[in-house]
Parts: sequence; C-alpha cells; structure tokens
Amino acid sequence: MKRTIITGTGCYIPPLVRKNEDFAAGSFYTEDRQLIEQPIEEIIEKFRKITGIAERRYAPADMNTSGMAAFASKLAIDDSGIDPETIDQIIVAHNYGDLTPHSLQPDTVPSLASRVKHLLNIRNPYCIAYDILFGCPGWLQGMIQADIYGKAGVAQRCLVVGSETLSRILDQHDRDSMIFSDGAGACILEYKETTHSGPGVLGVSMRSDCLEEVSFINFGQSYSPKEDTGACYIKMKGRKVYEYALRHVPEAMKECLDRSGIPIGELKMIFIHQANEKMDENITKAFYGLYGITEVPEYVMPMSIHWLGNSSVATIPTLFDLVNKCQVRDHLLHPGDILLFASVGAGMNINAVCYRY
Amino acid sequence: MKRTIITGTGCYIPPLVRKNEDFAAGSFYTEDRQLIEQPIEEIIEKFRKITGIAERRYAPADMNTSGMAAFASKLAIDDSGIDPETIDQIIVAHNYGDLTPHSLQPDTVPSLASRVKHLLNIRNPYCIAYDILFGCPGWLQGMIQADIYGKAGVAQRCLVVGSETLSRILDQHDRDSMIFSDGAGACILEYKETTHSGPGVLGVSMRSDCLEEVSFINFGQSYSPKEDTGACYIKMKGRKVYEYALRHVPEAMKECLDRSGIPIGELKMIFIHQANEKMDENITKAFYGLYGITEVPEYVMPMSIHWLGNSSVATIPTLFDLVNKCQVRDHLLHPGDILLFASVGAGMNINAVCYRY
Repeated sequence: MKRTIITGTGCYIPPLVRKNEDFAAGSFYTEDRQLIEQPIEEIIEKFRKITGIAERRYAPADMNTSGMAAFASKLAIDDSGIDPETIDQIIVAHNYGDLTPHSLQPDTVPSLASRVKHLLNIRNPYCIAYDILFGCPGWLQGMIQADIYGKAGVAQRCLVVGSETLSRILDQHDRDSMIFSDGAGACILEYKETTHSGPGVLGVSMRSDCLEEVSFINFGQSYSPKEDTGACYIKMKGRKVYEYALRHVPEAMKECLDRSGIPIGELKMIFIHQANEKMDENITKAFYGLYGITEVPEYVMPMSIHWLGNSSVATIPTLFDLVNKCQVRDHLLHPGDILLFASVGAGMNINAVCYRY
Repeated sequence: MKRTIITGTGCYIPPLVRKNEDFAAGSFYTEDRQLIEQPIEEIIEKFRKITGIAERRYAPADMNTSGMAAFASKLAIDDSGIDPETIDQIIVAHNYGDLTPHSLQPDTVPSLASRVKHLLNIRNPYCIAYDILFGCPGWLQGMIQADIYGKAGVAQRCLVVGSETLSRILDQHDRDSMIFSDGAGACILEYKETTHSGPGVLGVSMRSDCLEEVSFINFGQSYSPKEDTGACYIKMKGRKVYEYALRHVPEAMKECLDRSGIPIGELKMIFIHQANEKMDENITKAFYGLYGITEVPEYVMPMSIHWLGNSSVATIPTLFDLVNKCQVRDHLLHPGDILLFASVGAGMNINAVCYRY
C-alpha cells in the first residue's frame, strides 16, 4: 500500500530576538482607541502568563517571506535526499505575501511558490508552484492537498512550505503585536510504498466557519488614535478566537484520530499550532476529555511558543523540524510513533492530520 | 463512469465603463521613467490594434474583489440548482486580495474564499474555503484542483471562482494600465456519473516556469519620475510575456488535447485567457500549426477582451458564462461539443483543460 510520508524537514529561525521587555517603551491602546493605563510591565507580565511567550524572532531587513521559505525548503530537500528537479508540486502557505520592511504593502505577484521555485533554481516545468491562503492552518492544508494529489496519482513528491513575516504587518499599539513573529518551515512529502503498520498520513479532518467567525482575525486600522493613515494591520479578536478554538479544535482532533482508527492510548505526540500556550493547553485538555481522560499525558505536546512566538503557518513545520532533528528536550520521536497535527486560524479554519512516524 | 461536470456558471460584469479615449488626458512613461513623447492618441490607437481592447470595466467604489466573487457565485449556484449547503469546497483564485479604492494595500486575511462563504451565508462547516494564487491561470488551476478532489473522493461539489480588481493596483503612468480591468466569474463543478461520450473534464495540462520568467509579471514602482512614495503596482514585461506565451501555450494546449484522446478536428471552441487579442490569435494559430493546420477554423475562439479588457483570473469563467448563456454572437454551444480552456500568467504559469460540453 501507499501513503504520504514526510521524508525531509527544514526550517528558518530568524536571528533577530525581540524580548518582552523590548515592548516596555511603547504604549498600547484598546480596540476603542483608549490608552491602556495599566503599567506596561504589568501588561507584559500578564501577556506572558497567558501566551507563554517570553521572546520571539523577527526576520532581518534583507530577508523576506519567500527567502525564508526557500531557506527552509533547501534544508528539507537536503534532508530528504531527493533531487529537487523531481518535485511535482511546490505549495506555499502564507497570509501576506512578501512584505518589505515599513512598506505595509503585501506583494503576492508572482506567487511565493514561484519565487521559491526560482530561488531553488528548479528548472523542471512540470513542477507546479502555487500558493494557498487558508489562515494559520495553511501549511497543514497544503499537506492535506499533497496527500490528495498522491492518492489521485497527480503528484508523488510535494514540497509544502509555511512562511510568514508578521513583524512587518503589526500594529505596535495593539497588545496582540507581542504575539506575532516570523519564520518558515518546510517538508518534503512523498507518496510511496509502505506497509500497513508503516509510516505516513493515516487520516485528516478539516472545517471552515465563516459566519460571524469571518471577522475574528482580519485586517484593520491601528488602535492608536494618533494614526490616521488608513493603513491596515493584522487584527485579532482574541477572546472570540479562544472560545471558537476551544469549542471546535478538540472535536476536529478527535474526528481525525477516530477516522484514522487509532485509539487515544496510542497517540504519542501532538503538534499544535503555536498560537497561545494557555489556549493550546486547554485544547489538548478538552481533546483528552472527549475520551474521558482527565489527565493529559506528560510530554505529549512539544511547545516552541516561549522563544519563537506565533509565526502563523510556520509554527507547526518549524516545531516538527526541531523535534524531528532531536532539538526539543524530552520530545524524542521513534519509528511507529502516532502523531497528531492540528491547527486553527483566520477564516476561521481548523484542520488536523494523524500521522505515523 | 464519473467526471467533473460544470453544472452552473455565473459572472459579475462591473458597471463602470472606461473607454480608451478616457486615457487621453494622462501621460505615459517608459520603464526607464522617460516620458513617451508620442501623441497619446497614437499610443492609444496602437494599443487598441495590438490588444483589441476598446474599453474595459471597473468595479464601483462600494464593490470589492470578494463581493464580485460572491455575486458571480450566487448566479452559478442558482444556475446549477444545487443547495449551497452541499458545496464541499470553495476555491477562490485572485492575485491581490480585496483592494479598497486608493489604498493600494492588498487585504488577504481572512481568505477571499472565507468572505465568499460568508457572503453566501453558507453554514456547513465541512464546506472548506481557501484561496489559490497562481497568476492569471488561477481560476483554471482551481478547476484542475476540483477535478482532482472529485477523482480522489474528497469533494463532489466545488465552487471555483476567479475575481480581481486590477483597476485598484494600476500605475496610471504605465501604458499597460490600459490592459487591465475588473470582474469575476464562477462555476459549480460536480463530480458525477456520466457516460463515456458524456460531458466532463477529459484531460488537463499545466506547467510553471520560474527561472528568469519569475519577473515577467511582478509588483513594481510607478514609471512616473514624479512619484516617490515607494508604492508598488502590477507590472508586466509585455514583450517577454508575449514571447513566453507564444513558445509554450500552444504546446500545453496540444498536450492537453492529445492526453484527452481528442483529434484536433473535433475541437469546437477555445476559451483562452483574454490577455491580448494579437497574442491570443497567434497562440491559436501556432496551436493549429502544431497539427499541420494553417487555417484557424472560423468561430473557434470567442473573445470578450474588446469590451471587458484583461481581468486576470476572471476572463475565462466570465467568457464561458457568457457563451454558456448564449450571449456571444456566432458562438453557440451544443451538448457533446469539445472545448479547450487555456491560460497563461504570472509565475509564469500555463494550464489547459479539455472539456466535453
């Protein structure tokens, strides 16, 4: 039998470290453009307790979203050992295209996938390059699409990349600006022969909720009453996102695991979108709760948000690359391990993939 | 047997007409920021002779890309007679997201597909909504993806939309600004039972060329030496695009037809991306030339560029909707007719789909 197998991983971790205390010189406003009077050190400490974020990474001025994507892709290709000219599809997930520092003008033409293919110097014209926009779950959705292409006989080898430079589309007067970061992660996915108990994608689930949820993460003006340029930035209704995610992500994860025919007791590790530590912990708790399990197993959920922040589409492939390469303490993978990937983000969209390592 | 069948079509034709003579009050510069001294009437007349464009349509200020997409989608859904809640995937192709007049800041979060689903008031959470960026061939690539989902058993009903408001990302000092326009087109695609000689997608072809071709259509600053805002606009190396298209589109069309097992003599109609009349005519001529045919059959290629301009991803689904609804003189479709869709655009990307009506 054949399955979609991850045969190579790579990531780009930007070199610029921005610590929480670096925000202390700023000022934050509410959505109603009122100055938040609370001492900024208190705001930052409360932020850290909820999100788990102590610092985050920003791309340097000479690096952009497609450049980071190509960097991570190169590592994934090298890791897999494949000839890049044999890649059938390049799928790049992002939200804002390439962003030049201080321009605030997303650059999406040509697609970032075309730019990645260019930077990788891939000549093969039958290597099809396109971008997918699906909010933060875009990278995982690209993996789901690659799996479909394999099953349909359309593509045997796909490069799936998630890359984002959210540092360049932030409203610095919005507390949520402390959440977002930059980064890129990539995988080579190959649809190839395996055994029944061998590695590969075992099942998926996905959903899109676009009634009132369409506005939970969007593009809006600065909260600062002093800014009247009309420029827009990434905006999030944090409470709404939190409630939505808690309501629907656990059930999507369970649906995915159940469809894969895997008992909860066999699940080894959960790679969840690094959105917010408390939210991720509560999602996982609720997920186990759906099986009547009140204690979440230790070491089931590796986290990178503390030092990498939320880089949208890049969080899962980056975290998976780190664990795959034994760079996350207490989280070692072994052949046969059952993994669950899960994400939630703008749309709102949710997806999950069950994978045997 | 099952095939992917177009069961409904719709389009949005913007009400604002901008005629060639409306450009006569402006001034054009070269890529090197030199004023083009030629009388503007001569420039416009030469432009008309090459591109075939006499006028084009722009969206009104209160309409945006996702709004046009939803309008076209509603008509396609009504035309198909399906319950919108039974749509499995909504795929929206575009290049610049939503653009607010005069803002020049593409708005891509949430995805336009999420916004279309919202505007259609579709509640079903298993209707997955995402955007594809693939240059002008994006709509046709969405159709190819929907066909794959059908074959893979992932989605039976897809809504595939192409929508663009290029009028809002134009450099008015670039002659190419006269080419681009706004619009939206949509199809409902259903993977369903048919006979061997029945309707549906018969074959596809696609390619991506991203070496030097990556820069042929891109995002660049105004040609006017007076503008120094750093703002970017859609930019095209017209000669390079023309040469590239002439070299590769005919062979992709032939590859598609041959894969479908259809002799050239059975081809009834070609729906080609409305990029430039001379280019489209020469592509078709070269395509027939590949079969040793020196005379292109009469009425094989309906055109809308004269009055609609080049609305990128929207040209093919709009033109197909018009012909499908008997609104293009001398171009009537009959059951069993063999059609060839073909597109080329930023990336550079090319694709083609052979379809029995």
